[in-house]
Amino acid sequence: MSGNDEMAIKPPVKVVQWANDASGGRLRLLDQRLLPGEVAHCDCRNVEDVRSAVERMVVRGAPAIGVAAAYGMVLAAGKMTATDAAAYLEAARPTAVNLSLAVRRIAEKCADGDELDADLALAEATKIHREDVEMCRAIGGFAAPLVERCASGGGILTHCNAGALATAGIGTAVAGMYVAAAGGCDFTVYCCETRPMLQGSRLTAWELKEAGIRAVVITDGMAAALTDAGKIGMVIVGADRIALNGDVANKIGTLGLAVLASYFEIPFYVAAPSSTFDLDLPDGTGIPIEFRSGEEITCGFGRRTAPEGTEAWSPAFDVTPAGLISGIVTDMGVISPVTEDNIRSSFRRR
Amino acid sequence: MSGNDEMAIKPPVKVVQWANDASGGRLRLLDQRLLPGEVAHCDCRNVEDVRSAVERMVVRGAPAIGVAAAYGMVLAAGKMTATDAAAYLEAARPTAVNLSLAVRRIAEKCADGDELDADLALAEATKIHREDVEMCRAIGGFAAPLVERCASGGGILTHCNAGALATAGIGTAVAGMYVAAAGGCDFTVYCCETRPMLQGSRLTAWELKEAGIRAVVITDGMAAALTDAGKIGMVIVGADRIALNGDVANKIGTLGLAVLASYFEIPFYVAAPSSTFDLDLPDGTGIPIEFRSGEEITCGFGRRTAPEGTEAWSPAFDVTPAGLISGIVTDMGVISPVTEDNIRSSFRRR
Repeated sequence: MSGNDEMAIKPPVKVVQWANDASGGRLRLLDQRLLPGEVAHCDCRNVEDVRSAVERMVVRGAPAIGVAAAYGMVLAAGKMTATDAAAYLEAARPTAVNLSLAVRRIAEKCADGDELDADLALAEATKIHREDVEMCRAIGGFAAPLVERCASGGGILTHCNAGALATAGIGTAVAGMYVAAAGGCDFTVYCCETRPMLQGSRLTAWELKEAGIRAVVITDGMAAALTDAGKIGMVIVGADRIALNGDVANKIGTLGLAVLASYFEIPFYVAAPSSTFDLDLPDGTGIPIEFRSGEEITCGFGRRTAPEGTEAWSPAFDVTPAGLISGIVTDMGVISPVTEDNIRSSFRRR
Repeated sequence: MSGNDEMAIKPPVKVVQWANDASGGRLRLLDQRLLPGEVAHCDCRNVEDVRSAVERMVVRGAPAIGVAAAYGMVLAAGKMTATDAAAYLEAARPTAVNLSLAVRRIAEKCADGDELDADLALAEATKIHREDVEMCRAIGGFAAPLVERCASGGGILTHCNAGALATAGIGTAVAGMYVAAAGGCDFTVYCCETRPMLQGSRLTAWELKEAGIRAVVITDGMAAALTDAGKIGMVIVGADRIALNGDVANKIGTLGLAVLASYFEIPFYVAAPSSTFDLDLPDGTGIPIEFRSGEEITCGFGRRTAPEGTEAWSPAFDVTPAGLISGIVTDMGVISPVTEDNIRSSFRRR
């Protein structure tokens, strides 16, 4: 594929949009809870709306959450101190580091004392937004050759949604698929439905379909049989936080896929922007894992799927050890093998 | 636990009941599609009703299907030849061998020429029914010490439903839990919800709760994180067909759990009555795998969970190689290591 092809690729939909109108600033989020049935938006006019939208997963995906939270800081200006606003937004979802990075960056750069400056905050949020679009484009460029090498004429397995819907651009794990497809590469994407919230079937299958790429949905438990059947040439997923040694927190179910890929000797890649690295954490044991309500499992489709009162254990993320990862595709290139040294030098070269 | 405790254990509900009433024979099946919300029954008065009930998963679980199909043969008497009735019922679901064994046994033993004798068929079906109850009891006796050794004070992971609801008795994989619990052993059972049909959350959690055993539901993708968190001491599942070399076909998702158990060095057991072995098949490659409608994935909760027209790949079963299985618990004892020689001698000792 050429640089021109990459430039031509547009995300199928706008996930995060900022506008100034008569009543002030407004953050418009695509309400991803309603997909694929409905394309509707949720308007946030204050920081409370933004936090609630992140908590309720109106917007999700580590990079998209970071961009949304950055605009949340803009809406907090004049109402909260920079420190309070950052802490308030950070509490919405603890695992993805992009959120934390974005709000802290604005708190540091755009405050006079601890007073947020709305104009400076908006300029910085807009910059974070643009950077995210650029990082997705760069990841797509680095990931496309892997797709072409491992999956041409065959299949790719992905989990959850690390596509356009998870970012402000063309996605992370899915970005390489868009770029490879634009370059004429033919492949099928198998999407783990990703219980409990079904981001794989509701979101990834939806955006691939919009882009004209063949998507086939499986339940999470079918991944082993699919791999055993020889249907996939690579696994590629996104990330919510990556530690200095390369341990990766990502949507629950990722660790199981990495173990399978290792057993069946299939390359297992992670794709994430450099904003997903948390170089302060030596390894994955320090990553805070969000647990969500068991109701998302036992009553997740508006219908009770387990007896009243049944307990559930519901971590939203798991941690995949670096040793199970063939490579991490970032906007700076492909880090492989995944070691602390290689991660450090990737950031030094920046 | 003592023999008396085992004797005292009753299944929480009757899955398959036969009665003769004024209008002739009637097979009453618990409609498992409605659990846990509703305990209702489905009456079958002819062989067509029985086949349809098996196909639509009103009754499911390899042993229970075998018993139901045996009574289906009784209802076919006078209306179909023995050969036709057996073939007709066998086509309902191809993977579980118990169905096939049961109907062929009745076709061979209870026909004059190819004419089914209703009284002989009923006597043989009743015998198959009683044998199933006994096999469950025996499996429970052999599996309980494994539960006591591996999971006392800790956790057990199971998949789908291999409990009382899958048999005419106290189950296969779950039987050892009932016996161990009756003997005072304390443990938690983590139930993979088992998409697409959710037998784990709908059925296993329900029957364990009825029996006063602590059940915690997880999505299928959470099994790796659960194991990594040190929460389980063993995995035990049922089987739909076991080849001569010990390869096991069981509910889709089982293979993934076996790979995980091997990676995390947790014992992985299969529990199944001797009627689940297909000694004519040298290995698992010959086991026919049923594929079900993709709608069970993309529209499985009365709500569309993937875009209209999305493809799905939906095998109902996968095959776990013998090498990943620590032992197979049968009504004849525990086969370990799982090798053709050990399986052959287990059947010779019978």
